[in-house]
Amino acid sequence: MSLLIVGSIALDSIENHHGKVHDVLGGSAVYSSVSASFLYDKVSIIGVVGQDFPKEHVELLDKHGVNTSALHFADGETFRWRGRYNNLNQAITLETHLNVFEKFNPVIPEDLRDSPFILLGNIDPEIQLNVISQMKKPKIIAADTMNYWIIKKLDKLIEMFQHIDILFINDDEIRLLTQEHYIYEAYQKILTYGPKIVVVKKGEHGVMIVKKGFYFFAPGYPLKKVMDTTGAGDCFSGGFMGYLASCKTPNDKILRQAAIIGTITSAFNVEGFSLDSLTELSKEKIDSRFDELKKYTQFE
Amino acid sequence: MSLLIVGSIALDSIENHHGKVHDVLGGSAVYSSVSASFLYDKVSIIGVVGQDFPKEHVELLDKHGVNTSALHFADGETFRWRGRYNNLNQAITLETHLNVFEKFNPVIPEDLRDSPFILLGNIDPEIQLNVISQMKKPKIIAADTMNYWIIKKLDKLIEMFQHIDILFINDDEIRLLTQEHYIYEAYQKILTYGPKIVVVKKGEHGVMIVKKGFYFFAPGYPLKKVMDTTGAGDCFSGGFMGYLASCKTPNDKILRQAAIIGTITSAFNVEGFSLDSLTELSKEKIDSRFDELKKYTQFE
Repeated sequence: MSLLIVGSIALDSIENHHGKVHDVLGGSAVYSSVSASFLYDKVSIIGVVGQDFPKEHVELLDKHGVNTSALHFADGETFRWRGRYNNLNQAITLETHLNVFEKFNPVIPEDLRDSPFILLGNIDPEIQLNVISQMKKPKIIAADTMNYWIIKKLDKLIEMFQHIDILFINDDEIRLLTQEHYIYEAYQKILTYGPKIVVVKKGEHGVMIVKKGFYFFAPGYPLKKVMDTTGAGDCFSGGFMGYLASCKTPNDKILRQAAIIGTITSAFNVEGFSLDSLTELSKEKIDSRFDELKKYTQFE
Repeated sequence: MSLLIVGSIALDSIENHHGKVHDVLGGSAVYSSVSASFLYDKVSIIGVVGQDFPKEHVELLDKHGVNTSALHFADGETFRWRGRYNNLNQAITLETHLNVFEKFNPVIPEDLRDSPFILLGNIDPEIQLNVISQMKKPKIIAADTMNYWIIKKLDKLIEMFQHIDILFINDDEIRLLTQEHYIYEAYQKILTYGPKIVVVKKGEHGVMIVKKGFYFFAPGYPLKKVMDTTGAGDCFSGGFMGYLASCKTPNDKILRQAAIIGTITSAFNVEGFSLDSLTELSKEKIDSRFDELKKYTQFE
């Protein structure tokens, strides 16, 4: 019984108006795994790093109970990304060195193939499909994607959609995919592509869950200071999936709660560079913000 | 006991991808008054029109129980606005003819000076102040404004803020006013300018209410088809204030409900050009969408 999280592991260099950081821990699988670890104690990370990957980063994952047994150390250097934020919401990529990530195509270890919960980070849909094909009896498969794959690998993306339960995506990507003018028609259309649940990421405006005959809106958590939004979406999906995995039979009530939990893990993360703030999270802090968000949204 | 609504009354010509309309009924005071009329039966409109203002528009206001006794028929033509929407959210002004609205500076009739509720549409803050000075014992004064006045008449705007309870404004305007980088710090700062309650209009993302130690998020109502967003903000403020006026002592619970009601009146309006869709609204339709929005936001 495990939540398998597949995606990038990176060393990020980030500049914004708060300052600069160099070669700090990042990558979708890292952000998602650590976020999920606060909700569920059987999280396994699947990813590739180079020989230069600092030991302390592996220790950090271990410390949070993330199973790193399937972390692959390849010959070469770790994936590196350098970006600048002119405002806090949009990153400009300055450099990308895929390095060992270029040939990432994971073989899932035998003992993890019966994991019921799978979160596929935003990677090539062919790799997502390849992972799915290795799983024995998945209960919930969730995947993230982006405009790059919609443009480059639409066929494979559409094929992948037919195998997943949950899709994380934003409004622009939904419009690009569906070519629908009206966003609520686009939401309905995307449900016909395969995913049973679409989680629409709206940045500072929160998230929206769309399912047949079902909507749920979760606002962004009101944060006084935002330090760095890198990994915000991955922390959302990690918290969301960690919570779903912790509940035996996810129903509508749990889906709503998961959206709120993801909102909270994501909000904690953006309060610091890299995982600095996220790693300070606790069950108590999550519960306290959960109650706060209830106050901010409930009416009679 | 009346809700006084002061603002523009216009004949609008609008183009968008759905089509074109010419010289249709519009203006902030009209949208707000008709919206408020579904919640409260003592709404009075204060505005100026020209000799060319069609009689049927006055009849429409009368039909909705809006008191038009203070509607001023001046010599000249009615205020006209012509705009085009390239997307549904942002209008490009093609022509503005202020006409009789240029000299709008209303004298509130004696019998309306003791109105406890006042909604001041987005007009010159000097006129807003002039109206406020004529009121005898206002209970709640609400005002809308825009970037134009922040740039042109900041002093008068800041003076006006000291007399109002509720301010309707958007994030860009708040940033322009406060010069704060972090939006939640900007929200707190704007509260120090005078208004006890700030209602942040976020377009399709809904509204947020900010008060000392209080936040409330209302999402946009999920609309399949949006026809024309002209007047959306005014329909929000009208529904919001109409509901507050209908409740004897507005408290936090009522404030939250008012945000949802405003969301609903606004959503009905954008389903048609001019007031075509809004005028089809009813108490029952409001109640039904109120319950829907509860389902879309509540969690345990």
